[in-house]
Amino acid sequence: MNYFHGGDIYRNDVKYDFSVNTNPLGMPEEGAEAAHRAIELSSCYPDPFCDALRSAIAENDGVKKESITAGNGTAQLIHLICLCLGVKKALAPAPCFCEYERAVNTAGGKMHYHILSEEDGFKPDEAFTDCIDRKTDIVFICSPNNPTGRLYERAYIEGLAKKCLENNAYLCIDECFLPFCEAEDRLSFKRDIYYYPNIIVLRAFTKIYSMAGLRLGYMLSNDDALTNKIREMMPLWSVSLPAQLAGTEVLKDKRYMSETLKLIRDERKYLSNELKGLAKKVYESSANFILFRADEGLYDYMIKNGILIRSCADFTGLGRGFFRIAVKKHYENEIFIESFRNYKEV
Amino acid sequence: MNYFHGGDIYRNDVKYDFSVNTNPLGMPEEGAEAAHRAIELSSCYPDPFCDALRSAIAENDGVKKESITAGNGTAQLIHLICLCLGVKKALAPAPCFCEYERAVNTAGGKMHYHILSEEDGFKPDEAFTDCIDRKTDIVFICSPNNPTGRLYERAYIEGLAKKCLENNAYLCIDECFLPFCEAEDRLSFKRDIYYYPNIIVLRAFTKIYSMAGLRLGYMLSNDDALTNKIREMMPLWSVSLPAQLAGTEVLKDKRYMSETLKLIRDERKYLSNELKGLAKKVYESSANFILFRADEGLYDYMIKNGILIRSCADFTGLGRGFFRIAVKKHYENEIFIESFRNYKEV
Repeated sequence: MNYFHGGDIYRNDVKYDFSVNTNPLGMPEEGAEAAHRAIELSSCYPDPFCDALRSAIAENDGVKKESITAGNGTAQLIHLICLCLGVKKALAPAPCFCEYERAVNTAGGKMHYHILSEEDGFKPDEAFTDCIDRKTDIVFICSPNNPTGRLYERAYIEGLAKKCLENNAYLCIDECFLPFCEAEDRLSFKRDIYYYPNIIVLRAFTKIYSMAGLRLGYMLSNDDALTNKIREMMPLWSVSLPAQLAGTEVLKDKRYMSETLKLIRDERKYLSNELKGLAKKVYESSANFILFRADEGLYDYMIKNGILIRSCADFTGLGRGFFRIAVKKHYENEIFIESFRNYKEV
Repeated sequence: MNYFHGGDIYRNDVKYDFSVNTNPLGMPEEGAEAAHRAIELSSCYPDPFCDALRSAIAENDGVKKESITAGNGTAQLIHLICLCLGVKKALAPAPCFCEYERAVNTAGGKMHYHILSEEDGFKPDEAFTDCIDRKTDIVFICSPNNPTGRLYERAYIEGLAKKCLENNAYLCIDECFLPFCEAEDRLSFKRDIYYYPNIIVLRAFTKIYSMAGLRLGYMLSNDDALTNKIREMMPLWSVSLPAQLAGTEVLKDKRYMSETLKLIRDERKYLSNELKGLAKKVYESSANFILFRADEGLYDYMIKNGILIRSCADFTGLGRGFFRIAVKKHYENEIFIESFRNYKEV
């Protein structure tokens, strides 16, 4: 398996990891405490039904508990969705998160990409909607999109949902990074699953609650047949005890969310402005990361300075010289910008 | 999904959980410490290659690192094996662990059971070996078997391996409970993967290191094509950071293993002897649990006393009145026996 993802601190000497898009505030304290408690209880099997966690999510999201299926990260759910639906033809805009394609391949299907225009800043376009046809089993979109940071408007996503419905296809809306956006509640399709039977919404604790090491995600769907099949196909005890206990607790911390939004807004602005003077091009982002173009040599230079950034050379629709960085705390962002400045001077 | 497994402390008021077969000593201290450290690092993604963990396993087991694939519990690996092999016909003795059948169903195959004789104490027989034919894709065995506790002799398993080889079938040997047996190194097929290309060995940290809540298992196979396919099909970051760090540490604790073996040997003997005066029948066990037959009412009576035992009514080949209990610490075992004595007096 080739590994191009961010976060490969295991084979690099990294002091500042800008390649991973987790919340710079770290896990909320109540979550960490609950995870520590789970370690002490680790002789117990986790609840395979994730009852307490799903109750907490239901209350937080204003959805029915039955609509929620928790997984060992959304990656597991993406794989199960493709397997359960027996996906043959899948569609996604490019660039996008590569795990959709891996999951489609696993199910024996084929991913078809619609390349978004770099000139338009990777804006979602109507030509993508036009690609949906009777052979399409599922359409994947991520909003804001990884790695571009581009937000999809509600009206655009509704257009996709309708076109999918006409063509008997599912629409999987990956909202992993949406909680980093202002007014995410208005933008989310969490409760639209009750209006569109073909919508599947993916949500992650990994990014917004900085729980990447613990693995926790969930899907929302009002399609009982699909949900039941996924639960039947899921290996038992998929969601660990630390993930379940921490996940249940972190949802209570509303102050953490408002602090996060302020930090991301301020620091994204700082980074974008500074990057504009350093990079060849900076793309508009609504997420907790920024895509930009720069000299190819930047990656190696940064690694030598202990800074890991995400090379986007492996993304379909991108190529060498595209990089993604996470929005981190101000002192870290300053260190990155300072290093970049020195690179220009070389 | 129906849930019949042990460990359902989430829907029962349980003080003493005899339904779950984890090490009564709890996780080794170094493992717990490493897991706590992992919580503090949880903004980092886990290593998808499980490099450090696999190095530690390779050294401990005397196998090549390339032969090892770690998973989110062996349950995940059982599912991936069936999916990767496209299993149509699987074979297992009954009674046995039910997750094999769930995994076979998930792959679209069918599990065929060979019912072992209750009169012979569920001893593995030649008739089972004779069931292997050209249509068999995979044979599952668990030694010692769950829930009977019966150990399979090496010669018997070798016979299965040879018959599988003749019939172009895989043999999956689940050794989850083998570390609880004396001389497990002699009994294990860990290193036989280099002699039998069709052998897959499953090993778990869950039971022997009491890490059920953290989820960690691995498979050993010298079939590179299968191993690579499983790694390709595995959702990214399947093994959490606490599981990886704890797993790497616990292998170092040799004293824990000798204490475990002594405790299990002594307490299994105590429980078996006492049970013989209380139950209708007690089956010989080489594992850290004991199967017995008793009045059907025992389950509800025990629950009322805060003691959860495993009803084996749902196992193919067993039925109502079969129960499995874990071997726990002496004071707990005494409490169980004392309760059972009172039940007899009702």
